[in-house]
Amino acid sequence: MAGGIRIATLGFVVWLYVSTTEKAALGEKVLVVPVEGSHWLSMKLLVQELIVRGHEVVLLVPTVSSLLIKDAVGYRAEIYPVSYTTEDLVNVFKHLKEGVFHKHYKIATAFIGIKRLIDFTSIQVKGCESLLYNPEVMGRLRGEGFDVVLTDPFLPCGSLVAETLSVPAVYFLRGLPCGLDESATQCPSPPSYVPRSFFGVYTMTFPERVMNTVVYMMESVGCRIMYAHFDELASRYLEKDITYKDILSHGAIWLFRYDFAFLSPKPLMPNMVLIGGINCVEAAPLSEDLQGFVDGSGDDGFIVFTLGSTVDTMPAEQTQMFLDAFSKIPQRVVWRHTGILPDSVPEKVKVMNWLPQNDLLAHPKAKLFLSHGGSHGMYEGICNAVPMVMMPLFGDQQQNVDYMVARGVAAEVSAIDLTPENLLEALNKVLNQTSYKEKMVKLSAVHQDRAVKPLDLAVFWTEFVIRHKGADHLRPAAHNLNLIQYHSLDTVCFLVVILMTISFLALKCCLFCAGKCGVRMTKKTKQQ
Amino acid sequence: MAGGIRIATLGFVVWLYVSTTEKAALGEKVLVVPVEGSHWLSMKLLVQELIVRGHEVVLLVPTVSSLLIKDAVGYRAEIYPVSYTTEDLVNVFKHLKEGVFHKHYKIATAFIGIKRLIDFTSIQVKGCESLLYNPEVMGRLRGEGFDVVLTDPFLPCGSLVAETLSVPAVYFLRGLPCGLDESATQCPSPPSYVPRSFFGVYTMTFPERVMNTVVYMMESVGCRIMYAHFDELASRYLEKDITYKDILSHGAIWLFRYDFAFLSPKPLMPNMVLIGGINCVEAAPLSEDLQGFVDGSGDDGFIVFTLGSTVDTMPAEQTQMFLDAFSKIPQRVVWRHTGILPDSVPEKVKVMNWLPQNDLLAHPKAKLFLSHGGSHGMYEGICNAVPMVMMPLFGDQQQNVDYMVARGVAAEVSAIDLTPENLLEALNKVLNQTSYKEKMVKLSAVHQDRAVKPLDLAVFWTEFVIRHKGADHLRPAAHNLNLIQYHSLDTVCFLVVILMTISFLALKCCLFCAGKCGVRMTKKTKQQ
Repeated sequence: MAGGIRIATLGFVVWLYVSTTEKAALGEKVLVVPVEGSHWLSMKLLVQELIVRGHEVVLLVPTVSSLLIKDAVGYRAEIYPVSYTTEDLVNVFKHLKEGVFHKHYKIATAFIGIKRLIDFTSIQVKGCESLLYNPEVMGRLRGEGFDVVLTDPFLPCGSLVAETLSVPAVYFLRGLPCGLDESATQCPSPPSYVPRSFFGVYTMTFPERVMNTVVYMMESVGCRIMYAHFDELASRYLEKDITYKDILSHGAIWLFRYDFAFLSPKPLMPNMVLIGGINCVEAAPLSEDLQGFVDGSGDDGFIVFTLGSTVDTMPAEQTQMFLDAFSKIPQRVVWRHTGILPDSVPEKVKVMNWLPQNDLLAHPKAKLFLSHGGSHGMYEGICNAVPMVMMPLFGDQQQNVDYMVARGVAAEVSAIDLTPENLLEALNKVLNQTSYKEKMVKLSAVHQDRAVKPLDLAVFWTEFVIRHKGADHLRPAAHNLNLIQYHSLDTVCFLVVILMTISFLALKCCLFCAGKCGVRMTKKTKQQ
Repeated sequence: MAGGIRIATLGFVVWLYVSTTEKAALGEKVLVVPVEGSHWLSMKLLVQELIVRGHEVVLLVPTVSSLLIKDAVGYRAEIYPVSYTTEDLVNVFKHLKEGVFHKHYKIATAFIGIKRLIDFTSIQVKGCESLLYNPEVMGRLRGEGFDVVLTDPFLPCGSLVAETLSVPAVYFLRGLPCGLDESATQCPSPPSYVPRSFFGVYTMTFPERVMNTVVYMMESVGCRIMYAHFDELASRYLEKDITYKDILSHGAIWLFRYDFAFLSPKPLMPNMVLIGGINCVEAAPLSEDLQGFVDGSGDDGFIVFTLGSTVDTMPAEQTQMFLDAFSKIPQRVVWRHTGILPDSVPEKVKVMNWLPQNDLLAHPKAKLFLSHGGSHGMYEGICNAVPMVMMPLFGDQQQNVDYMVARGVAAEVSAIDLTPENLLEALNKVLNQTSYKEKMVKLSAVHQDRAVKPLDLAVFWTEFVIRHKGADHLRPAAHNLNLIQYHSLDTVCFLVVILMTISFLALKCCLFCAGKCGVRMTKKTKQQ
C-alpha cells in the first residue's frame, strides 16, 4: 500500500483523513476515482492543483492498491475492501508487461494486448463490485454531496459511481481501447484518415486504410467483449439494460492527454478538451551527485534512459546489448534500471532505481532520451525538446512511437529484434543528424504554445462542471438518436420511397396519356 | 467613404497612412481584408487589439466601400480602385434588405436569400478582379512581406489574396452559406443532428430531419452556384483548376463567432476556434441625456429596440404597430429608428439614429431587448443577460432566433405577420414571466464562463499563425483524400471483393469435395 496511508486490516473500511488544508472548507467536494499505475501520474497533478485551489478532495481507492499516492497530501481517502489480494494484483501487472521482448506480428500484438486488458479489467470488476455492493461505503459517498466525480474511465468504476450518485463526471484519460471514447462522445472518426492503433499515421497508404477500416469495423464488437463484465455489472447494479458506453456518454467533460503537435488532427466534440503535456512542469534542481555526473558529461552531453515504471526486469541479454552500444558512443548515460546488472557496468553509465526524468531532460546537456514511448515520458521529452530513440513495448506506445518517427524527432528500435548494431545505429542517427534536434525544437515550440496551460485548462473545466452542475450545453443531440437515425438511413429511405412513388406516378400518367393518345390515333386511323 | 480617410479620386490608388503607434515597428505585418457591413463590426475589435499589441496592420479596401472604418486608428489602408460605383453598392445593399416585411414560405425565404447573396457576391467578384489584375497594388502587397492575412471568408477575395501571396490566412466569420465552412475544414456535420439553416434546433423531428437531409444533399450544388463567379476568377487568375472551397481549405485557423451556449453542439476540427461573444465589452458610460432617460424608467425599467444597421426604413404601418404596443406596457423604450415617424410619438419612447446598444443593455433597468436576431446584438444581449423579443428579418437571423426561443430566453414575433396584439403578447410574456430572465441569466453565465476571453483567444491564434508561419499541424489528412477515399468506399469495396472471393473459393472447394465424395459413393454403390 501507499506509504502515507496505513491500512490496519484488509476487509475493513477505513475512513482516513490524511491532511486537509484550511482552504478546503471554501471549495467544492471532488470525488476522485483513479486508475492504478502510470495513469495516476498525470491525474495526480490535477488533483493536487484542485487541492491547492481549496477544493475538498476525496480519493476512492481499494484496500489492495498499488497507487502511488504517497506523495499527494491534502485529500481524504475513502478506502473500500475488495475480494482480491495484493498478490492477485501484482500478478495481473506482471502479466501485462510479460513478453515485451518476444517476437509477435502487429496483429498478434493487438490481440495479445486485448487479452491482457481483459484480464486486467476482470480483476477491477471484482473490486468495483465490492464497492458498489458495500452499503456502508456507498451510503457514506451518497451522504457526502459531491459536486463532481473526477475519474480515469480506462476503468469504468468511477463513471459507474458518478452515475449512481447522480454527480456529473469529468474524465481524465489518454484514450480508451477500441475507440470507446469516440463512440461514447459521438465523435466522428472516419477510418479513412483517423488511424486506429497500430495502423498508419497521417495520410495512410491503401493497405493501411484497409487494415484501419477492418479494425474500425471490429471495434464495437471488441468493446463489447472487453467490457462485457462491466456491462453485466452495470445492468445488474442499476437494474436496467445499460452498457458501459451508455454510462460513459453521460460524462460532462473529457480531458484528453494528447494534442495535435504530433498526433493526427481529427474531429473533436465540444466537450473534449486537450490537455496533452499536462505533466510538463518546471524542472527541479538535481541532487548534487546527479548534477555532478551530468555536468561532467562535456560537450557530448548525456542520454536519459528509462523504460518506464512498468518494466522493471530486462533480460540479461538485452541489458548487455545496451551496455555494448553505450560503450561505443561518447555520451554519458543515466539509466533507470531495477533488474540484475553485469559486474562490468562502465563508469559513464549511471544506473538508478528511479530517476528525476523531467529534471534530467531539462538539463542543457541532455542530448537524447531513450524511452519506451509511454505518453507521460514522451511529453516530458517533447517539452524539453530532447530528440528520442524509442523502443515501444505495449499499449499505446507503438502508436506514439510511429507518430514521433513520422515527425522526424525520433528513431525506433524494436525490443524484439534488438541488436547492439541497430541500437547503435539509431543512437548515432539521432545524436549526429541535426535534423532530429531541429525538428524536435519546432515540435516542442508548437506543443507548448498554448492559450492556456494544460493544467490550468483541466482545472478550469473541472471547476466549470462544478459551477454549472455539468456541461449540458455541450451534449450533442446525437445522443438522442439510434444508429439508423444518426446515419440518416431513415430519412434517406423515406426520400427514396417518395422519389420512387413520384417517378412511378409520373410514369403511370405518361403511360395513361400515351395510351389515350394511342387509342385516339387508332380510332382516327380506323375512321380514315 | 469612412470619415477618417479622404479619397481624392475614384480610380486612383491611394496609399494612406492613417496613424501608426510607436509599437507597430515591433510587431508583425498583418494584412486585413474585411467584408462590408455588420461583418466588420466584430472583426474591427480583433484588428484594434492587434494594433494595440504592436502589429503593423494594413487594411485592404476598395475605393467604393461602406466600411465603417472611421473609428479605427493605427492602421494603414491600401485602397484599390474598382469598376463599380457607390450607387451600385448602395443598390445591392438595398436589395439585400428588401421585402423583409413581406410574406414568404421558409423554403422561399431560403431561395430568396440565396438569390440576393449571389447578387451581392457578383459585385464583389468585380471588385476582386479589379484588385487582382491591378499589377501596381498586387506588386506592392507582394513586396510588403505580410506574416498573416486576416479576412472574413464570407467574400473570397481575402483568401484568394492570401493564396496568391503565399501567406497563411486566419479566417474570421460567423459561418458560410451552404455549409462551405464545414466542407472546407473537412468537419463532419451529420444532417441527422446538426441543423442546417431554417430546419430545427437540437433534437429534430422526423420531418425536420428529412428537410435537413435534403438541404444537406443540395448544399454542394448550392455552393457551386453561389460561388461560381469566384471559382471562375480563381481558376483564371491562378491558372489552374481550383475552386473557392479548395482555396478556403488552405486556411490556417478559423475563428468562428459562435458558441454552444445556445447553438447545437456539433463536431469541430482542431483548427476551428470558437470566439462567439467577442463583441462583449465593458459598458461605457451613457450620455447624460440617455442616462437620465433610462434612470427615470422606475421599477418597470426600459426596452432597447433595434433592428440593426441594415434596416433603416420600416413601413409606416409597422412603425405604428410598435408604437401602439409600447403604449400598452409600462416600460420606457429606447428605439434606434432612422425612417419616418408619426407626429404622435409618446414621451416614453426615445427615438435615436444610433444607440449605444451594449452600454444600454448593461444598464440594470434594461428589462428587454427587442431585436432582429443579428448575431452581434444577440451576443450583447446574452452577455448582459437581457431576455429578448426577436423579429428575424434575413440571413442567419431566423436560426439565431429559433435557438434563443428553444433555450427559453426569447419570444419570437414575425415581421410579416406582425400585429399590435401578437407583439404585445410577446412583450408581456418576456417581461412578466420570470423564467425568461432566469434562463437568460443561466445562459449568460455559461456563455461568459471561458478559460480565455474570446478576444484574447482570437489574438492568440492570429499570433500563433504568425509565430509558426501557419498551423500545419492542425491540418487533417482528410484534405489529401478524394470523396471515395474519404468515405472508405474503396477499402470497403476491396474488402467485399476479398470476402466474396474467399466465399466463392470455399464454396468451390466444398462443391469439389462433395463431388468427389459423390463419385466415390456412386462407385461404392455400384460395386455393392
